[in-house]
Amino acid sequence: MPSSIPPCPAVLADRFNTLRYDPAKQAVVLLDRRKYPFATEYVACRTVEEVAQAVEDMVVQGGPPLAYAAGLGMVLSEPTATAYRRAADRLLATRPTADDLHHVIPAALERALAALAAGEDARNAVLSYVNAEIERGNQVSRACGQYAADLLADGDRVLTHCFAGAALCWMLWIARSQGKRIHLYPTETRPYLQGARLTSQSAVEMGIPCTLVTDGMPAHLMSQGLIDKFICAADRITLDGHITNKVGTFQIALAAHYHRLPFYVLGYDGPDPQTPAAGGITIEWRNGREVLYLAGQRTAVEGIDALYPAFDITPPHLISGIVTDRGVFPAHRVGTYWEGDRPGRE
Amino acid sequence: MPSSIPPCPAVLADRFNTLRYDPAKQAVVLLDRRKYPFATEYVACRTVEEVAQAVEDMVVQGGPPLAYAAGLGMVLSEPTATAYRRAADRLLATRPTADDLHHVIPAALERALAALAAGEDARNAVLSYVNAEIERGNQVSRACGQYAADLLADGDRVLTHCFAGAALCWMLWIARSQGKRIHLYPTETRPYLQGARLTSQSAVEMGIPCTLVTDGMPAHLMSQGLIDKFICAADRITLDGHITNKVGTFQIALAAHYHRLPFYVLGYDGPDPQTPAAGGITIEWRNGREVLYLAGQRTAVEGIDALYPAFDITPPHLISGIVTDRGVFPAHRVGTYWEGDRPGRE
Repeated sequence: MPSSIPPCPAVLADRFNTLRYDPAKQAVVLLDRRKYPFATEYVACRTVEEVAQAVEDMVVQGGPPLAYAAGLGMVLSEPTATAYRRAADRLLATRPTADDLHHVIPAALERALAALAAGEDARNAVLSYVNAEIERGNQVSRACGQYAADLLADGDRVLTHCFAGAALCWMLWIARSQGKRIHLYPTETRPYLQGARLTSQSAVEMGIPCTLVTDGMPAHLMSQGLIDKFICAADRITLDGHITNKVGTFQIALAAHYHRLPFYVLGYDGPDPQTPAAGGITIEWRNGREVLYLAGQRTAVEGIDALYPAFDITPPHLISGIVTDRGVFPAHRVGTYWEGDRPGRE
Repeated sequence: MPSSIPPCPAVLADRFNTLRYDPAKQAVVLLDRRKYPFATEYVACRTVEEVAQAVEDMVVQGGPPLAYAAGLGMVLSEPTATAYRRAADRLLATRPTADDLHHVIPAALERALAALAAGEDARNAVLSYVNAEIERGNQVSRACGQYAADLLADGDRVLTHCFAGAALCWMLWIARSQGKRIHLYPTETRPYLQGARLTSQSAVEMGIPCTLVTDGMPAHLMSQGLIDKFICAADRITLDGHITNKVGTFQIALAAHYHRLPFYVLGYDGPDPQTPAAGGITIEWRNGREVLYLAGQRTAVEGIDALYPAFDITPPHLISGIVTDRGVFPAHRVGTYWEGDRPGRE
């Protein structure tokens, strides 16, 4: 990575800006992403249960960040083997779809139990591990963003969905450093409006021109020649190249394919080695009531119900490439990410 | 039409419930569809300009209703040839996409000028014509809804987008009278939430089970086998079978086609005889600021802009059939609606 690239000014490009363990408070401190950037409020969680509920309630969202938050939650456990196992079970049960949580928590538990067995400070062992994971995730995001920036051309109009995280920030920031003029089109992403808030705010912080659209507009904009590429993240990638991401991704991918536009996935540290195919992905169904409200205001009539599948699955034939910290893979070959003797997550 | 079907209880199934000329007030009275059903407020327009602004501001929406409202606006003109021509120009300029406006206003102008030439009451001639058009539109809606109901099977789970108007109400009501159990899945339809308000409210009034989804969910629900048919309306249909409808329709149609699910268009009184092909459709671009707010509340960050193309165009190969008051047409044959010597609009 050339050192000539200045620090990325997007707050969300560095996960330490939004989540950390505060030893003075003995609390996990999380930026409330449900309100940010309209309000910059930090939630202090003092128990494992409080962290678990914060993850469930989407105080923190995005596959890696919620995994880090939960991992820091392990630090709050009583330092006994029984308590660590119970904490791990509780934190793993918060959200089923993104795979990062399901790597970080077992690994944190392993560190805790090993430290206890060796008569060492288990709390410290867990904290060191999770902080190292956050730092590794920051490096992964930057490397993934670098490969993605290299795919962009000067003048590209990039559609994105939900908030594609730190790698999206780095992609845009590095492309800008390369002198490429990129225009970002985020979908607003109902019901939580991550696009209208997190993605748009990050673009503003980096000085990237940003034009918001509703979730229903992508196909039309493509038909009018207003979009060059569709780029989003993935909460889980299977070894055979399916990606799961915020619901809405699949139909935008269909629209991109129909219009022969490239669809790149920011794949961070690659596919989940434990998920060979789409059948292994559990899609989280959140409470449908979340669709009946917006920012606490009822937006739908009484007398109906609603559905909220939080994610959908896009098959590999609709994907032009999966961009990782190790380069760009054709979707159906993304399983080769794990080939060879390269360092990576456990 | 069998007379055994009881009156449809959906308020929006009868356009006279939502728009009328009030001779006592000398005003055009319009249900404010931006607020309904959260508030049932009527806007009284006393000048042509007030009606034009109400149409532009979406106090009334939907191709036929906004055309009727504008037609009633002609009643408010000074009864001179010059004033009628100016009123017609102003009202025609309100919204470009739906074709009904562009039939009703010239016809109303013709009635006005003919009455003036014959020394008759021009205001009365216009009002009689527009009221007859509203009544004809009600009959068209019911006939179209009857043909659409015949396409439904007991147990069908019907996805719809935006508010497909009186024909949707009649389709659901007649299907219910036929003993068919239909479950409606409206998209909420940002930015104005017609699905969460108008469509959902109509379903509630008719006792039709209704489950709201966001605009990003259709493809995923289809992939999970949760949807049987996609049915929406059209603001304009070309003679070669393209349909234009609320933005978002096109990408749902792509998703339905991918999943081999039927997509039927409620085509009311058929294609626009003056629009041979999609190139003849003007897509309205509304102020992007409407996307930055919801119900008056800012939902997006500062420092960005937004786009609001109000409609999109779906090509005939994605459409299973266009349902009209004269029966169901294959999309590429919808131009034959006008063949033969059948009564219809001018």
